[in-house]
Amino acid sequence: MRKAAIVAAGQSAFGEFPKKSIKELFVEAYRDMLGAADVPLDPRRVQAAYVGSLGVGGFQLGQIAPLLTTYIGLGPIPVARVENACASGGFALYQAVLAVASGACDVALAAGVEKMRDLSSSKTRYWLGVSGDTEYERLAGLTFAGIYALMASRYMHEHRVGKKYLSMVAVKNHENGARNPKAHLRRKIALEEAMKAPDVAHPLNLYDCSPTSDGAAVAIVAAAELAREFTAKPVEIAGFGAGSDHLAIHDRETITSLRASVEAAKKAYEMAGISPADVQVAEVHDCFTIAEILAYEDLGFCPAGGAPRLLDEGATTLQGRLPVNPSGGLKSKGHPLGATGVAQAVEIFRQLRGEAKERQVKDAEIGLSHNVGGSGGSAVVFVYRAM
Amino acid sequence: MRKAAIVAAGQSAFGEFPKKSIKELFVEAYRDMLGAADVPLDPRRVQAAYVGSLGVGGFQLGQIAPLLTTYIGLGPIPVARVENACASGGFALYQAVLAVASGACDVALAAGVEKMRDLSSSKTRYWLGVSGDTEYERLAGLTFAGIYALMASRYMHEHRVGKKYLSMVAVKNHENGARNPKAHLRRKIALEEAMKAPDVAHPLNLYDCSPTSDGAAVAIVAAAELAREFTAKPVEIAGFGAGSDHLAIHDRETITSLRASVEAAKKAYEMAGISPADVQVAEVHDCFTIAEILAYEDLGFCPAGGAPRLLDEGATTLQGRLPVNPSGGLKSKGHPLGATGVAQAVEIFRQLRGEAKERQVKDAEIGLSHNVGGSGGSAVVFVYRAM
Repeated sequence: MRKAAIVAAGQSAFGEFPKKSIKELFVEAYRDMLGAADVPLDPRRVQAAYVGSLGVGGFQLGQIAPLLTTYIGLGPIPVARVENACASGGFALYQAVLAVASGACDVALAAGVEKMRDLSSSKTRYWLGVSGDTEYERLAGLTFAGIYALMASRYMHEHRVGKKYLSMVAVKNHENGARNPKAHLRRKIALEEAMKAPDVAHPLNLYDCSPTSDGAAVAIVAAAELAREFTAKPVEIAGFGAGSDHLAIHDRETITSLRASVEAAKKAYEMAGISPADVQVAEVHDCFTIAEILAYEDLGFCPAGGAPRLLDEGATTLQGRLPVNPSGGLKSKGHPLGATGVAQAVEIFRQLRGEAKERQVKDAEIGLSHNVGGSGGSAVVFVYRAM
Repeated sequence: MRKAAIVAAGQSAFGEFPKKSIKELFVEAYRDMLGAADVPLDPRRVQAAYVGSLGVGGFQLGQIAPLLTTYIGLGPIPVARVENACASGGFALYQAVLAVASGACDVALAAGVEKMRDLSSSKTRYWLGVSGDTEYERLAGLTFAGIYALMASRYMHEHRVGKKYLSMVAVKNHENGARNPKAHLRRKIALEEAMKAPDVAHPLNLYDCSPTSDGAAVAIVAAAELAREFTAKPVEIAGFGAGSDHLAIHDRETITSLRASVEAAKKAYEMAGISPADVQVAEVHDCFTIAEILAYEDLGFCPAGGAPRLLDEGATTLQGRLPVNPSGGLKSKGHPLGATGVAQAVEIFRQLRGEAKERQVKDAEIGLSHNVGGSGGSAVVFVYRAM
């Protein structure tokens, strides 16, 4: 298969932007990418585009891909929206990589965008609910916080660990996000503060939940052999994989591991020819703190039940042996659904190029990103290598 | 690029099915495919799946792909929804072809599904409207029938032709659809009846508009070199192409030609190494009768302004030299948005295998399908060849 590389990437600020439209958020991300490029990008080289978005609120639901790509002046190229709920951005990147790998094009744009803050919180719950199993979960009243709360309860029971470990994830990610100028919640929090926040869905409290955010992110994927025409420091997509699972958690064999993540990671490692121990920096899907804990185990960073020990050791902090979510993760950077998967790639791109400034992971050459749809109905993993 | 072929295909009945859920429609299409297969399909061979759907009504908007694929027992494979409004199905097929072409998998499922009849007609207008340019068209009150009415008026003015030619498209497609047991509107209509129907958006009347339908369609795409393991009569995807354009028609240079269709067709012909004159049967996007007229010209079946002559000659009837929409097209077969692009492939697959029964086009070996998003914001074209 023809190898692909990311040659440029950027994102808008994540947060609450009542005066910015979807188009403006997209342009902000595109301009951030152009501004950070070491070689000026000729938009005419972009031959295809994929936009990840759930379309929260439905303001512009259909054909958002041509709406956005024509708005920035891209030509009459093949474009499409790709959707897998919270993994929409990761799957948009996946399709861009396949388009380049197939030879159908040499250069593709992957983007993600979501505008979530225009809605009331009950409307937002509805829109998030449309990504669960409607018949068995949404109509029965189960929210996404509720689903992840069930996972957290079961995990704490199976491995006999306390709420503290959930809060440690929040503290770590806020610590990192405070160093990220694009982050939505840019402040450090103390462990005690995190543990005592009001409950959302027990045992998950306010600080266990990622915020609902507005934002956009973009990346240019090029055939690896052409990558140096675009930048002196391309980042190879060394491996990629995706998986899926039943939406309704009652249909799964376990709720303390996401099968979709396990499958995605297995394929990505195999293609990249690496093992989990080779990963030096990772952006994982921490929509709720328990999700990051499950990710450690599903991605093979530790055995099942080993996540609390990783946290006790500080292994996944910015100074640890495997920094996870240096961007602040979904928890602190924010989680504009469709944008998230692409923004993870933006962060790893900058980390592997040594451009992450205050949150730079030292000497990282191999990175990973992990994006989950809803409560694990889908997942996609990329392994990146500095070229 | 590695060649791909369709090795199995099927569809549900199209129509109004208040008692069938999205899952049931999907299963109906899948079973239709299994029942028509000459070699039993082992579902474990399916390594990826793409589902086209706009998600009209929003009942199950997020992650419909894993919801449906796990429901029929497919494994933890990469799946995603692909959306480009009315071209969602065509772009799902496009991604399945790219997945196989890239070597990421050998066998992929392409599917499309839509359930539109649960909504009132005002709600349906809203959901269709979310595929136009919301800021400049939907919020100003322009409907899709209204947009195509503008195109029709301009076409009739530029080429000095009357309403009769619009109605001739409707008459032809109803004639064909009456022979299709899966069609939504399965009855012949007379020219006078078609011309005198009540206006929807002048000059388009009721018989110029495709119905809103429930339905699903599926196809299996395999690497061409493996195709004969699945069937004795595979149909090669000889060429494919896609294009895009501004959503808002005021941003376009012309409204009597869809640039996205022209771009898509150009690429598909080039890849297949054929000219429009080589096409022996075509399924084109006739969401409104004017759309089929523009398609004749955009696909190169005749020069600009030449469509009325093609209709006068009867060239595109089932007995003509280039039968168009033998299935009945969107106009008579029905138009469940996400399903349409895949259902077009199902029809061409059956035509090139000689399995179209009462509506069989004689000795066709090269076919084409053409699927348009909304009012032309996106389009995708496939050229098929009997293997």
